[in-house]
Amino acid sequence: MIGAVNVDVPTLVEQAREGRPRAVARLISLVEGASPQLREVMALLAPLTGNAYVVGLTGSPGVGKSTSTSALVAAYRRAGKRVGVLAVDPSSPFSGGALLGDRVRMSEHASDPGVYIRSMATRGHLGGLAWAAPQAIRVLDAAGCDIVLVETVGVGQSEVEIASQADTSVVLLAPGMGDGIQAAKAGILEIGDVYVVNKADRDGADATARELNHMLALGESRGPGDWRPPIVKTVAARGEGIDEVVEALEKHRAWMDEHGVLNERRRSRAAHEVETIAVTALRERIGDLRGDQRLDALAERIVAGELDPYTAADTLVEGVTAGA
Amino acid sequence: MIGAVNVDVPTLVEQAREGRPRAVARLISLVEGASPQLREVMALLAPLTGNAYVVGLTGSPGVGKSTSTSALVAAYRRAGKRVGVLAVDPSSPFSGGALLGDRVRMSEHASDPGVYIRSMATRGHLGGLAWAAPQAIRVLDAAGCDIVLVETVGVGQSEVEIASQADTSVVLLAPGMGDGIQAAKAGILEIGDVYVVNKADRDGADATARELNHMLALGESRGPGDWRPPIVKTVAARGEGIDEVVEALEKHRAWMDEHGVLNERRRSRAAHEVETIAVTALRERIGDLRGDQRLDALAERIVAGELDPYTAADTLVEGVTAGA
Repeated sequence: MIGAVNVDVPTLVEQAREGRPRAVARLISLVEGASPQLREVMALLAPLTGNAYVVGLTGSPGVGKSTSTSALVAAYRRAGKRVGVLAVDPSSPFSGGALLGDRVRMSEHASDPGVYIRSMATRGHLGGLAWAAPQAIRVLDAAGCDIVLVETVGVGQSEVEIASQADTSVVLLAPGMGDGIQAAKAGILEIGDVYVVNKADRDGADATARELNHMLALGESRGPGDWRPPIVKTVAARGEGIDEVVEALEKHRAWMDEHGVLNERRRSRAAHEVETIAVTALRERIGDLRGDQRLDALAERIVAGELDPYTAADTLVEGVTAGA
Repeated sequence: MIGAVNVDVPTLVEQAREGRPRAVARLISLVEGASPQLREVMALLAPLTGNAYVVGLTGSPGVGKSTSTSALVAAYRRAGKRVGVLAVDPSSPFSGGALLGDRVRMSEHASDPGVYIRSMATRGHLGGLAWAAPQAIRVLDAAGCDIVLVETVGVGQSEVEIASQADTSVVLLAPGMGDGIQAAKAGILEIGDVYVVNKADRDGADATARELNHMLALGESRGPGDWRPPIVKTVAARGEGIDEVVEALEKHRAWMDEHGVLNERRRSRAAHEVETIAVTALRERIGDLRGDQRLDALAERIVAGELDPYTAADTLVEGVTAGA
């Protein structure tokens, strides 16, 4: 694995900053693989981050997420922006820079040096998405991407988690998936900042938009200055309505800036990230004690009925924290 | 909830020790609900535990787990043993002393004071099965059960986890579920100490036993003194073969005693339990820092690009461990 080799991280970071795709790819592999140099990478990246606007795209399979992502990439490129795409697949253990499956729709952007596309698998990942995605976003941010589109590939559950990584969350729907809306009611209405009804040339698009509008109104308890998620109709395959989506995103970004929400979201995201890293670190320290004589001795005393597991755990926690 | 009331724990433990079912039920509710008195309960139980022989029963839905459990209960009762049954349902959030669904087959034992039956749900449980089940087992152990049968209800995944809680693991199969064997190959052949082919009056029982025997032989790399898992054929609904299962269990127990395996398994189980409790405690401490000014300040500095999340996590871990 790349992480096993001792890499010259400062040079890599410098190259990534210049936008060299291979350097970006290697950095993402380093952070994703929890390489020994992960900390060095993150420390060097920190001062370079904070410029990218992170947009999450979620929605059930079949709503046209990749097509929409691709259309958004095109729109942002026309506006001269550098774009990073992070396609997160929580059901797959395979990561890489290669385009997977339906990411073929992205191929029009594959040779564009202003676009960086990365597939990331989070199955089996220690800490999962919460751990892996923010670090890859940091790399893309430091590499000079103005926009990072984070798209879930495959089936959800992690929709809420993806949304929590983004500055703005776009929820995609499509007509003829009515039960999808019903099923999604619980979670999806909480997380969207912008709603997109894609495939709007199909029968039922207006009904879907109406139903969505109705449900959003039902769940509403907004004050005068609050954000009202807009619903945009698109035909992403033909690029229709995409400029309106970009417009809605820019409006949301401006609203967040104005109300201090962007900073608040990023702070809460950073806090969550730090927590996840800290818990993982502590868990590893305890794991390191496996086979340790102290743990064995405690277990022995529990089996003998001399000690209860809680008192034993206290001792263990003290041991771990003393080693801090 | 019961846990909210201040319970006289020493009295409860004394009553449970006398075998009073309601006291046992309340104690399990206390430990299961992570009540404030959990530690007091566990500390008082510790010297009373270590006598029960814990048998895990796993197998796909439809193999007759409840029927087999019930038949085993009857057999042990005939031998004058006190029996605890813990029916663990990892897919359900509902726990309780009441008999659920197909546990109706257990109803013949419901009025027997020498049998304690408890359903336990682990879905959404902090730490899941690893956390909840061992504590309930301790209560049943302290209450004087000679045998505790731990049975998974519903669909598996946690089969391996159940097995790790038991002194001896019984894996149940049934004929006509050939693909079940295939599917189970990976995990199930690792965990069984005793294999039972139930519904042995049906076509294909011999074939199932042969196939199983073949697969066990393939995976074999045993030394001369090693345990060779026996395969027992039963018709649990008629009680046929159950005495042979009990015999196989006793043989395994004797073998474990002789080779120091029983103590080793219990030690490793206790170690795992302590680890789980310790990790949970540390995680909670970090969770307590949410909204804490220190975490907010760290997050602020990350957003500003002044700090990377790893260095921030180090600070957080120091903060947590300093509070130990």
